[in-house]
Amino acid sequence: MALIVQKFGGTSVGNMDRIKNVAKRVARTFSEGNEVVVVLSAMSGETNRLVGLCHEASEFPIGREYDLVISTGEQVTIGLLAIVLKEMGYNAKSLLGHQVPIVTDSQFASARIESIDGQKMKEELSKGTILVVAGFQGVDPLGNITTLGRGGSDTTAVAIAAALKADLCEIYTDVEGVYTTDPNVCQEARKLERVSYDEMLEMASLGAKVLQTRSVEFAKKYEVPVMVRSSFNDAAGTLVCKEDEEMEKVVVSGITYNKNEAKISVLRVPDRPGIAAKLFRPLTEAGINVDMIVQNISQDAHTDLTFTVSKEDFKRGLKIVQETASQIEAKDVVGDPNIAKISIVGAGMRSHAGVASQMFDVMAREGINIQMISTSEIKVSCVVDVKYTELAVRVLHEAFGLGKSEVVEEKQG
Amino acid sequence: MALIVQKFGGTSVGNMDRIKNVAKRVARTFSEGNEVVVVLSAMSGETNRLVGLCHEASEFPIGREYDLVISTGEQVTIGLLAIVLKEMGYNAKSLLGHQVPIVTDSQFASARIESIDGQKMKEELSKGTILVVAGFQGVDPLGNITTLGRGGSDTTAVAIAAALKADLCEIYTDVEGVYTTDPNVCQEARKLERVSYDEMLEMASLGAKVLQTRSVEFAKKYEVPVMVRSSFNDAAGTLVCKEDEEMEKVVVSGITYNKNEAKISVLRVPDRPGIAAKLFRPLTEAGINVDMIVQNISQDAHTDLTFTVSKEDFKRGLKIVQETASQIEAKDVVGDPNIAKISIVGAGMRSHAGVASQMFDVMAREGINIQMISTSEIKVSCVVDVKYTELAVRVLHEAFGLGKSEVVEEKQG
Repeated sequence: MALIVQKFGGTSVGNMDRIKNVAKRVARTFSEGNEVVVVLSAMSGETNRLVGLCHEASEFPIGREYDLVISTGEQVTIGLLAIVLKEMGYNAKSLLGHQVPIVTDSQFASARIESIDGQKMKEELSKGTILVVAGFQGVDPLGNITTLGRGGSDTTAVAIAAALKADLCEIYTDVEGVYTTDPNVCQEARKLERVSYDEMLEMASLGAKVLQTRSVEFAKKYEVPVMVRSSFNDAAGTLVCKEDEEMEKVVVSGITYNKNEAKISVLRVPDRPGIAAKLFRPLTEAGINVDMIVQNISQDAHTDLTFTVSKEDFKRGLKIVQETASQIEAKDVVGDPNIAKISIVGAGMRSHAGVASQMFDVMAREGINIQMISTSEIKVSCVVDVKYTELAVRVLHEAFGLGKSEVVEEKQG
Repeated sequence: MALIVQKFGGTSVGNMDRIKNVAKRVARTFSEGNEVVVVLSAMSGETNRLVGLCHEASEFPIGREYDLVISTGEQVTIGLLAIVLKEMGYNAKSLLGHQVPIVTDSQFASARIESIDGQKMKEELSKGTILVVAGFQGVDPLGNITTLGRGGSDTTAVAIAAALKADLCEIYTDVEGVYTTDPNVCQEARKLERVSYDEMLEMASLGAKVLQTRSVEFAKKYEVPVMVRSSFNDAAGTLVCKEDEEMEKVVVSGITYNKNEAKISVLRVPDRPGIAAKLFRPLTEAGINVDMIVQNISQDAHTDLTFTVSKEDFKRGLKIVQETASQIEAKDVVGDPNIAKISIVGAGMRSHAGVASQMFDVMAREGINIQMISTSEIKVSCVVDVKYTELAVRVLHEAFGLGKSEVVEEKQG
């Protein structure tokens, strides 16, 4: 008997037929003798609808009430699944974030999980109850409802798996696993059997929409084995797990892209100590995450500073930076939302040199201008004009030998 | 300075423009120097949509998860109104049932309020906060989310007004007040300036859709003055208050009808002591309210027993009664959902005789067969074939002189 956490995304619970399919899958796992905790997202489109309502109500709706509104989608789906499971004769119980409880900090719209009390869940599981937990939401120490940010249901699932020391956390989604790149962009894309936490982390944070970054961080920290698989068929998925020797042999595991960032440049900043801190502190205080940062060499005591934020935060971020820029006597602030970040990821990069320069070569050959570069142990990212996204992905996928014809055939067969 | 509770129904918050109008009205009341607690329903249609989803999930979805699902509509509207009020520069805070807390029993889908802790609300109000409370929902002692049944937001509003000893509870709705009868059925219908708690109670429980019964019971018990008025204009509404001498002079204040009941007859029940108890106990245990009960004179040790339940409970009630009927050796059970209950209501009936017989005369003159009769101190109700509903209402309205031409003119002007 194993304890399995199963998470189903928005498309998997998009209508009643699909919810009933989820119920069948959950029931099958339970009937095979496992303890099952289900974590659900809202029906696909519902969170967007709720976010839209909030933005109709206010230009900057983020705050306590925003989370209250956008957390209702999961409340509906967990209730419906529990009703279906009971109808099928199972003992099922839905739990909201504050009923678990899943305690978070008070950073609305992007709260972080601080603790999960697994005691009540364990008692219920031992009584043969299938638990159905709302993803994406928590409660802060004051009793305010919080949400974890987009894709937060993955984090809920992995965090619950960690808290309960589950044997496996299955993430059911609308794709069959983690691919070498987006199959919609590159026909040669191939499903990976296994991927390391670190690789997945880079892929998740770089825009592969399969798993939310924080869920992978959680999985890595608590060594939760995560299986990404399709909710529409029984095909084997991709196991996200600890790195092993086999993985290190592969130099590049995947190519990712992210069109959801925007670039902000602060021009001719006086090059004094503490300037960067002054520039970024207000952004942090406003809860805006800065991703890549590039600072050019200082010329005549002035420097240019460029960084990226999510498109969602672009307008707000630009406004904040403009205020700070005038205080620190920078010359100008310019923004550009028409960018994409293209990245190559692979655990093998640690032991292989020259991967970055190969990437730049490939891009140059296609006439793609690189605007920003950032690297880590296992990835290289370039910001380019958004119009080159698909081209860059395809040529890099080919150049690093990620498409294997026999596997592609199998996929098409 | 007064403390005012303002409740807005589903049509009043049906879209963002309307929510913004509600915000303006709330802000005006607050700016006039009052403390304001707002209670909201879900957007019109939303609760029906959620109930529909639950019924797609199961034939009998009522239970813990049903309430979880259908309580989300109010969560959305209170969040949105609070966001709009904050955008307007006011200090606003939304509160869910469990955040107030509004503690109820555990009778899902029709929970009763047991206590409301007004302490936290008073503290917030004294800090100049406009509170926006979710109607319709509460929390049971185990932390399960409960709902109060259709129209429960009225009850929430009045109960909060009682808990806070508010000076006035305003119920904003899509009609301008309480009418002598449904204006959609009878053009001559006239708005009442004032109506007593008892009259309103009869009207509410008899089908006038203006206020939920329990909200009037609460108002009567705690003597909360309730003003029913339109959220779309500033016309004076109807004040529901304690009975006074003026009210007693009016024999009949209003005619109501209710098409939302169904009739169940148990035929040839052995006439033994305890049979009625045996018949009704399982219904009570299933949470089904029985309204009118008629038992015919016993013939050869057998009797016929007829009663009404809400249409919603009809199928379930019929099933339960069929089981009991075979146990107590009744001959047959027949049901009829095509009925309507027509009632005349008036505080003046207490001191005037012959009102009932006048009602029966009027019905007979029109050839309307009366299937069941039930009376109280201030009302007489008849069950008739549903097809006679509108005719019965109009002839009774006329017969008891409720339409006054001068008032009708004013209304049309």
